[in-house]
Amino acid sequence: WEKVLSAHDAWSGWVCVLLVGVAAGLCAGIIDIGATWMSDLKEGICKEAFWLNKEQCCWSANDTTYDDEGCSQWNTWSEILGAQTGKKAAAGGYIVKYLLYVLWAVVFAMLASMFVHSFAPYACGSGIPEIKTILSGFIIRGYLGKWTLLTKSVGMMLAVSAGLSLGKEGPFVHVAACCGNIFSYLFPKYGSNEAKKREILSAAAAAGVSVAFGAPIGGVLFSLEEVSYYFPLKTLWRSFFCALAAAFVLRSINPFGNDHLVMFYVEYNEPWYLQELIPFIFLGALGGLYGSFFNKMNIAWCRYRKNSKLGQYPIVEVLGVTLVTAILSYPNKYTRMNTSELIRQLFSRCGAEDKTMLCDYNRNSTSLSSYTSSTVAGDEVYTALWMLFLGLLFKGLITIFTFGIKVPSGLFIPSMAVGAIVGRIVGIGMEQLVVRNHDNPFFQNMCQSKQFCTITPGLYAMVGAAAALGGVTRMTVSLVVIMFELTGGLQYIVPLMLAVMTSKWVGDALGKDGIYDAHIALNGYPYLDSKKEFTHTTIAADVMRPRRNDPPLCVITQDSMTVEEVEAIFRDTSHNGFPVVLSSESQYLVGFVLRRDLMLAIANARKNQEGVVSNSIVYFSSQVPNNPNDPAPLKLRKILDMAPITITDQTPMETVVEMFRKLGLRQTLVTHNGRLLGIITKKDVLRHVAQLGNQDPESILFN
Amino acid sequence: WEKVLSAHDAWSGWVCVLLVGVAAGLCAGIIDIGATWMSDLKEGICKEAFWLNKEQCCWSANDTTYDDEGCSQWNTWSEILGAQTGKKAAAGGYIVKYLLYVLWAVVFAMLASMFVHSFAPYACGSGIPEIKTILSGFIIRGYLGKWTLLTKSVGMMLAVSAGLSLGKEGPFVHVAACCGNIFSYLFPKYGSNEAKKREILSAAAAAGVSVAFGAPIGGVLFSLEEVSYYFPLKTLWRSFFCALAAAFVLRSINPFGNDHLVMFYVEYNEPWYLQELIPFIFLGALGGLYGSFFNKMNIAWCRYRKNSKLGQYPIVEVLGVTLVTAILSYPNKYTRMNTSELIRQLFSRCGAEDKTMLCDYNRNSTSLSSYTSSTVAGDEVYTALWMLFLGLLFKGLITIFTFGIKVPSGLFIPSMAVGAIVGRIVGIGMEQLVVRNHDNPFFQNMCQSKQFCTITPGLYAMVGAAAALGGVTRMTVSLVVIMFELTGGLQYIVPLMLAVMTSKWVGDALGKDGIYDAHIALNGYPYLDSKKEFTHTTIAADVMRPRRNDPPLCVITQDSMTVEEVEAIFRDTSHNGFPVVLSSESQYLVGFVLRRDLMLAIANARKNQEGVVSNSIVYFSSQVPNNPNDPAPLKLRKILDMAPITITDQTPMETVVEMFRKLGLRQTLVTHNGRLLGIITKKDVLRHVAQLGNQDPESILFN
Repeated sequence: WEKVLSAHDAWSGWVCVLLVGVAAGLCAGIIDIGATWMSDLKEGICKEAFWLNKEQCCWSANDTTYDDEGCSQWNTWSEILGAQTGKKAAAGGYIVKYLLYVLWAVVFAMLASMFVHSFAPYACGSGIPEIKTILSGFIIRGYLGKWTLLTKSVGMMLAVSAGLSLGKEGPFVHVAACCGNIFSYLFPKYGSNEAKKREILSAAAAAGVSVAFGAPIGGVLFSLEEVSYYFPLKTLWRSFFCALAAAFVLRSINPFGNDHLVMFYVEYNEPWYLQELIPFIFLGALGGLYGSFFNKMNIAWCRYRKNSKLGQYPIVEVLGVTLVTAILSYPNKYTRMNTSELIRQLFSRCGAEDKTMLCDYNRNSTSLSSYTSSTVAGDEVYTALWMLFLGLLFKGLITIFTFGIKVPSGLFIPSMAVGAIVGRIVGIGMEQLVVRNHDNPFFQNMCQSKQFCTITPGLYAMVGAAAALGGVTRMTVSLVVIMFELTGGLQYIVPLMLAVMTSKWVGDALGKDGIYDAHIALNGYPYLDSKKEFTHTTIAADVMRPRRNDPPLCVITQDSMTVEEVEAIFRDTSHNGFPVVLSSESQYLVGFVLRRDLMLAIANARKNQEGVVSNSIVYFSSQVPNNPNDPAPLKLRKILDMAPITITDQTPMETVVEMFRKLGLRQTLVTHNGRLLGIITKKDVLRHVAQLGNQDPESILFN
Repeated sequence: WEKVLSAHDAWSGWVCVLLVGVAAGLCAGIIDIGATWMSDLKEGICKEAFWLNKEQCCWSANDTTYDDEGCSQWNTWSEILGAQTGKKAAAGGYIVKYLLYVLWAVVFAMLASMFVHSFAPYACGSGIPEIKTILSGFIIRGYLGKWTLLTKSVGMMLAVSAGLSLGKEGPFVHVAACCGNIFSYLFPKYGSNEAKKREILSAAAAAGVSVAFGAPIGGVLFSLEEVSYYFPLKTLWRSFFCALAAAFVLRSINPFGNDHLVMFYVEYNEPWYLQELIPFIFLGALGGLYGSFFNKMNIAWCRYRKNSKLGQYPIVEVLGVTLVTAILSYPNKYTRMNTSELIRQLFSRCGAEDKTMLCDYNRNSTSLSSYTSSTVAGDEVYTALWMLFLGLLFKGLITIFTFGIKVPSGLFIPSMAVGAIVGRIVGIGMEQLVVRNHDNPFFQNMCQSKQFCTITPGLYAMVGAAAALGGVTRMTVSLVVIMFELTGGLQYIVPLMLAVMTSKWVGDALGKDGIYDAHIALNGYPYLDSKKEFTHTTIAADVMRPRRNDPPLCVITQDSMTVEEVEAIFRDTSHNGFPVVLSSESQYLVGFVLRRDLMLAIANARKNQEGVVSNSIVYFSSQVPNNPNDPAPLKLRKILDMAPITITDQTPMETVVEMFRKLGLRQTLVTHNGRLLGIITKKDVLRHVAQLGNQDPESILFN
């Protein structure tokens, strides 16, 4: 039995991450299927089986022709409402469809925001800034609970279906983290230890990205690079296992029916040429510009929301944004479609079977090989480019107002869409430039003959998407690896990397924080960035409390204070703990006692221990004098922390910050030649760091 | 100009890793090309152009037939020595070839070991244990110098060409680290700061694995998981850049002429089935068994070498091992060939163009599609399996004696070869089992029809190779990612992961350390493992010096010791530093002073400062009394470290070890109520950890 117990203990971590991975995969599958179904519900419904989405419906209909507009089984709302055929009716049908599209969008958005508002306010947003904060040691009760999970899952389906400019990929991380939190309570080793639980949460974050992009390795690196604060190596391997389990489950569910975990999986394998690095770097720079523009605007708008009356009407705001989004996005085919589907179209190359507007090239249709090379574009391509440009403006602007409203919302997908549109436009431009100048020596190696030039605009879209996402989030390695796993080929890693690097450098030059760090700062979470380097010239003595002219630090002596005196300290101060010193004259440090422990011990003693009165002396020392005339002494050595972390007053703040980060401290005591001088809490460190960054030090929240 | 300087400062890290990456790629390319050429030299030489290797030679010969035996341009040694044709002559030719093969092997090995012996003794072995130790903060002078780089590069070519059972993949990490060390001196920011230099070395290690396996992401994870001690996130991105630059350069050199960075790149894309997981897990268990068997045997042999006379004749040992290897490996085709080439053959599937023994299946040669399915094996396959089995025994045993001899030697390739042989044997067994029982319901889903079963023995070889390597090194994520990058497809990640996990668990159950950690322990390097968890019940007071009955700690008082007294302390002790206390009665800690600084300061003062004599008092305090009757005081406050890290005597050793690891301490002072009690150095911590692990604490080396 003991062996079983110890085996359980050793295995519980693995079993826990396995369960978390499976649960995250299941949640993702359900959300994907639900969101697809509800998105299609905006356009119509399946006659025979309402639970099927458009694709499945047409599949079951066995129609020979299946075009963009539907099949015999799929009924659009205008058909159901009995619009007649004919020219005038077509116009009427368009209006009916339009109105119903807007109506459904508003209904979905309202449901989503009401769900969030009434069941779990924490379910809004992407959740990544909060998870970063939680993993750094801050506790937000209920943020990862089952109600948040449920509300976020349902709210995500609704919000995506409403056609808002948001994605479900970021919130997957939150959903997975909720699974992680819930399952960790099944294993006392993890549920009852916050530090251990964070290991599970790190693994869960990896699983979230793994199911969002079908990229288990990218997920682990995302967790390592972006989310996790302290990532021990044991966690690396477990996170990988968790991410893989999640991807495996999602693949078995196969929500998109294409054997891939994401809609926009890339299947081509075209080469790229060295001179193409110039447009790739250009795309990277654009991505960085867009990223810092977006971050600044979004933060400004969120700050405005916080400080104005707007923040008091979250549901109205959601409805307003939805109304604007729905009305503006319907007329443009590219904004009307699902954003994932848009990205898929932008990423893909034009094969023989593609009849979309973007693929209207003047090809020699009899030869299949002409589809693997670039040719002169037809008129429809230019029309498509105009529509894409309008879509770009719309998406780029509306996302600023969307990210931060009170529905679950991620911004991976909108950012990627913006970048992909820019990339595709640049790509087609480049393609036409090369095709029309194939004799130019600069382009010669890209064209084997007059007909055979290979430029893949889809690759530009991919690079652009990576650049824009990189500019917004300032992810680096994990982003490149995620994109690499989307394509499965090492050959695009150099273009992607160059674009992401350029994007990060341009972005960092214009504004330091990624969107998640900016939101952490905006919300004032107590997050001590582990990546930044500080060059302090200050020492511990400058930061510690008490300051020069403050009253002295509130301390307890080890063998001379009465119960009454200690209780007076409780009344007068609200500190969470008190240093214990040898005597109030010498101030030599003995230990540290927590307020909670001390209050409990005294209350207990007063109730249960005979002879303890207000005059009793509280002893933290090992020897207690036995004087029968005095009231019974109160011995509290066992609640004293005899090993508090101390530093000297001359310690540079650089070292202090490092100790706080790496050892996960909450406070440290400052001494000089062994005498206690003061205390530095995490709060003081955060204030100090904020001051160095020219932020308002008072804006930081504390629990 | 100032802007240029600050830009240089910001960019120097990137420029440095770029240079390191390029240099690592160049070195790898040169070594690859040189090793291939010299390996072929054992068999023959190109008539027209001796600098071409066999493949290039035959390529330039434009022969229509190019079989295993050579082409018109390629002359084997027996041809050159003028052996006649005919049956008897063929036998004679075989003997001539055999003798020359052995002769060349011995010559190469002798050269390699003499190079290492006379120029750079540090160039032997794989170098990974030492690099791990260096990255943990220990300094080994000259280990990463230019002579080591040169000797290791040349020695590696020679050792690989000698046909020894070793690989060049592990030593690539050492070569890259040497490049990193050399280039870091170009940038004062990195060259003059050991901690900063370690960042460059981490990146270099990633580049080493990147060029060894063509796996930049795997390289970064290897550096993170296996090599690096402390891996800040900034390093992640730089390491990735470095690894990618190295891979890019190596790809441009294209040493194998196949557009891939490794010989054994896998190009198939076959599916696998769920029931195949059983043999995969079996392979994993075998890998774990082999790994711990190999580690135990190798360590035992290395210990025997250390403690016996054998260790005094390194060159004789190398020659002996080479002689045995060459004599035994020549008769067997599979052991005679380059190990990378063997792995390539084992990994590959049998296509229509493959005419090797392993691909002798009874196929319907008219239909191409029959090559994508499994069929009944022919006789030659069984012959090949026997030869492989013999090769397995030979390689498995000889590697034990090879890893550790005084030539550059890695064990990635031999371990992978052993695993790949086992895997291929199991794979062919499984294949034949399924083909012959295709009606069995258990196998039904693997066979579409009687002729169409798809089992890929090459995949088994790959899984087996990963399992064996995992068993030996106990790598996990990085190994899976390296194998994933070799195949470029996500679909094999689940089999690989399961096998590697099983291998690690089986291996860990039988013996805790991977081969690198075992060699670190064998050599007694002061390496504080950052992965292991310790459960200490001891406190700092039990570990600190002085022990209970020792003389008290040697301290310096801040304002009462004379120069003479301090010099007496120098004579009597050899400590590297001394705590400074308020007075010898109170023992309240003021600071810490390094022996080196103090000696220098006193010597300086005695020479240059007027009035300083043996009777002068050394002052570390801020106020120095001004008494004209006393000899001139010596003020040394500026060399005093006023912020030494201190702990209390009650601190649990768990916390102490964590502080040493995370803060990179060399010593910490132990206090009780502000009074100095003792000191704990890194040495004490290492001894304590060794004691807990039941090792001999005196076996640890210190610099």
